[in-house]
This record gives sequence, C-alpha cells and structure tokens, in this order.
Amino acid sequence: MGAKHILVVGSAALDSVETPSGKVDNVLGGSSFFFSTAASLLAPVRLVAVIGDDFPMEKIDFLKERDIDLEGLETAVGETFSWGGRYYEDPNKRDTLFTRLGVFERFDPKIPDGFRSTPLVFLGNIHPALQLKVLDQIEKPELVVLDTMNFWIDGTPKLLAEVISRVDVLIVNDEEAMQLTGRYDLLGSTEELISRGPETIVVKKGMHGATLVRHDGDIFFVPAYPVRTVKDPTGAGDTFAGGFLAYLAGHDLGDPLSWRRAVVYGSVVASYVVEDFSMWRTQVLTTEEIDQRVEKFQEMTTF
Amino acid sequence: MGAKHILVVGSAALDSVETPSGKVDNVLGGSSFFFSTAASLLAPVRLVAVIGDDFPMEKIDFLKERDIDLEGLETAVGETFSWGGRYYEDPNKRDTLFTRLGVFERFDPKIPDGFRSTPLVFLGNIHPALQLKVLDQIEKPELVVLDTMNFWIDGTPKLLAEVISRVDVLIVNDEEAMQLTGRYDLLGSTEELISRGPETIVVKKGMHGATLVRHDGDIFFVPAYPVRTVKDPTGAGDTFAGGFLAYLAGHDLGDPLSWRRAVVYGSVVASYVVEDFSMWRTQVLTTEEIDQRVEKFQEMTTF
Repeated sequence: MGAKHILVVGSAALDSVETPSGKVDNVLGGSSFFFSTAASLLAPVRLVAVIGDDFPMEKIDFLKERDIDLEGLETAVGETFSWGGRYYEDPNKRDTLFTRLGVFERFDPKIPDGFRSTPLVFLGNIHPALQLKVLDQIEKPELVVLDTMNFWIDGTPKLLAEVISRVDVLIVNDEEAMQLTGRYDLLGSTEELISRGPETIVVKKGMHGATLVRHDGDIFFVPAYPVRTVKDPTGAGDTFAGGFLAYLAGHDLGDPLSWRRAVVYGSVVASYVVEDFSMWRTQVLTTEEIDQRVEKFQEMTTF
Repeated sequence: MGAKHILVVGSAALDSVETPSGKVDNVLGGSSFFFSTAASLLAPVRLVAVIGDDFPMEKIDFLKERDIDLEGLETAVGETFSWGGRYYEDPNKRDTLFTRLGVFERFDPKIPDGFRSTPLVFLGNIHPALQLKVLDQIEKPELVVLDTMNFWIDGTPKLLAEVISRVDVLIVNDEEAMQLTGRYDLLGSTEELISRGPETIVVKKGMHGATLVRHDGDIFFVPAYPVRTVKDPTGAGDTFAGGFLAYLAGHDLGDPLSWRRAVVYGSVVASYVVEDFSMWRTQVLTTEEIDQRVEKFQEMTTF
C-alpha cells in the first residue's frame, strides 16, 4: 500500500538570490517546485502551475524522474515569474530586489480532470481568489492544506477568510498567526484560527522550530534542526509543507502520532533545503538522510 | 541524601511593574530573590545580596519558611534598589521607566565564612567586577553558573570575558549569544562560547524555549510551556536559573540526562512565575505542580 496522491497548486518561478554564502541567478524557485521536490521523496505528486514560454525546461528534468505528474504545468505566452532577493547574516532581515510576475499575473489554475479527486491537496501561497477557484474544481479531498502570507492577510482579508473556512490545515508562521488574530499568545491565536475552520494549525517559527495545535487540544513542539550554515532560506516553508503532507499521505490521519511525525518530517526536509541554493539539496536528498535527522530530532528532544 | 547547597549572589529589588494584566508597586524583585524562591523548592539556598534600611522586611517572611539562609543579606544605610518597567501585549517590547540603584550602587558582596565552600554557585546578573570578587572569595565549587546581560556585554566586555573564562555554565538569551560572538547560528555561537571557558551553554529563547549545548556535543531543545496569559515576565530568567540549578543540586552532574532535565525544570518553574506578578506564583508553588508540567513537557515533545 503506497502513499496517497497529493495535488499541489502554486507558483513556478526563476529566483535570483544573494546570501552571505553566494549568489545565483535564474535558479528554479516557486512554491509548487519546492513543494513537489520535497513531497515526491515520500508520495506521488500532481502539480498545477504556470511557466512562461521562456522557461528553461532542462531545469525540471529531475522532476520527471520523480513521481511527479506535470500534466497541470501550463506554458503560457510571456515571461516566467521571477523574483530576486537578498538575505543577510541576520536571519530576520530579507530584502526583495525585484518581483516580475510575468505569466503568473494572469495565472488561472485549471485542474486536469485526472487530478480532481486527488485525496490530499496543498494550496500554495497564491491569490486567495485563485485558491478558492481550485477548491471549486476539486472533489471532496480528505485533506486540504493551506499556505498564505502577510501580503494576502493585509490585502485580501475577506477572500482569505473564506479560504481558511474551507481548509483542514492552515500553515502559518508566528507573525502571520498574530497578524490574522491580533493575539500574541500561541494558545489564544491557534484556538482562534481553529474556530475559523481548520482543525489543525501548524505555526512555523523559523530558527525556533514549529508547533502543531489540533482541534482536540493536542499540542506538539518540534525545534528547528540546528543547521550549521543556512546558505539560502528560500523555499523552506514550501519544503516544510512538502515533507509534512507527504508523510501524512503515507500514514493514518486518524492517529495523532502521524500528525506529530509529519511535522518532524517537514522540519527535517526544510533543514536540508536551506543548506544549498534553490532545490539543489532536496533534489539529491535520500530517504536515508531524512531518517538520520528524524533520529537526531528524537535525540535532541528526549529527557 | 538531600540536594546540595546553592549559593546565589545577585540583586535585591523593589519593582514597580505595569503590564496589560495590571499594575503593581514596590513588589519584591531582584535576581537573588527570584532565583532563591524558585531554587528553594528543590534545594537549600544561601543568599548574598544587599537591601536598604527602608526595606519592608515582611515581604521576605515567606523566604524564611523555605530552606534559605539569609546570613548574607546585608542591610546598608540608604534606599533599596528599585526598578520600574512597562510591558506590552507584544512580548518583544519592554520599557524601563526608572532605575534607582540606591544601596545596590555600592554593593560589595561579602561571602560569609559558612558560605565559602558551597558546592553550587549562581552568579546573578550584577557588575562583572563584583562577580569576579565573588569568585575570589569562594573555594573550589563543583559548578559555577553565570547570568549576565547586554548592558555588561557592551559596557565591560573585558571583565565579562574574564568571568566567562572562570565559570562552568553560561546562561544567556539568544540575542546575548549573538552579541557576545557575532554569530547568528546556534551551533557556531555556542561552540565559540564553549571555547571561551564554560563547558555548558544554556540559550534562553523566551517564548521559543531554551537550548542546552555541552562541550561533548550534546544538544537538547525544550519548548516554552504555552502559558495562556503572561501576567508579568519579570524574573523569568532568574527563576529559570533557580529551577535549573536546584535540579542539578539533587542529581548526578555526570549524567547527561540530569542536565536535560534541569533545563526542563527551569522552564517549568519559569512558566509558573510569569503567571502572576513578582514571586506571587512561585512562593506558593508545589513540587506536585512542577511535576505536572514536567509531564506535560514530555507529552508536548514526544513523537
């Protein structure tokens, strides 16, 4: 019995990134690619995203060797979405150097017929109106996981509230949880978010790890793996979501331990992706390497 | 076989605190009192500090009912050290409203003869020159634990470096660890600190918990207990140190698990002190209540 299929709808991008460890131009980026590179280590993935007709297809050759169905990867006339950013020694600082939406500006996700009844769904960080369109095209999934960002919390709060009310799992970082609820305490903000729809909240805290809070009151904390050098933090959140959902795809959703372990797997895969630029690390990652760090997590938290 | 004795040298203060939960004036404060209230739940404590002749002695009646030797509590002519602060909903914000050093300005810690060979020593956050004076007055303790703050890291770096070179355990928060080492990554900064003397570093991360890093490479993470309402964060760090060192006082220092559990005990006692102003919560705390939350920590971190 293999893992269930996962549908991901998100961005496809070419990133230019400068960090204290180096500089890269036009490397593979975007939530759909980060997510599926991570998730496909543990579960079959179906991808929906848009690229421009300038897209260097050889960059995704490695995706085809994984169990990733690219039928939903649409090529539109125009430029691929591209993003440029700079990171600093201080992990709390980040500058966006440019954002060229290109074909992503008119992205209108069309879910292929064969994808509509995918059991697990990840709504990557795109316009909430598009996330709603995706929800309208799919059929009773077992689990829908939502990612979003401060930009939509500020800009389109009503649409975002509607999306939140229709998903099962919300993944946010700690600032977004505060921003969404106006509450600084973890218990207060997550209870408030659960009352808005999702049964499960995952709060990502960057270098401080992640917390899982569930509607039945279960609370689980996992630290961040202490990575020696964070070469490029881009895509850590989508990679986390990929590891998280792919673990759930292969395990019993009714078992509370599956949820806890999913958070650990997400954290482990994210700890690898930041060790190099783009998806360079996760595209060569092995399940043995994942298991090694999962064991380390046990060691680092047992008392 | 009971727990070993602990010597604490630190401040004794009267605090005036305003938080979103309320306002109190001239309540008991200072590192020596926060520390010993917490530590005396698990181990006998010897206290060295200075108060003014204005000090309302009835405020420390409860300390006398605990196993706390107050022979080193000196009364000097003048005003007791007092501090006023304001906290906000945002846990990252804090304003100091006033600092009146009073008799604390000329504090010259004299360790009573009977205290000189105390096996465990806590150097609370006072001027590094005074911390050195304490070290010169004591005889081969098994363990010296140091607390400090950004003020001394900036103001008296050389003296502080000398203190650090002479202690076994350094307790810092994550910002102080960065400030001391110029490194943002946990592994890098703690390894650097270990190379300066202490075999053990505890990095406190406020609402994100704490990390223990030891010279043998052992790393342990503990989350912060999710307290529903933080009424007053004053004294959380000294209370953490009190629970931490008091646990060690009763356990085998050669067992790595003792160190991990000490961090858990510190976190638990700190999670209680912030639930009310001053030491109001820790002065009525029971070991049963401590054990309850220790168990919760197990639950919240097991996968």
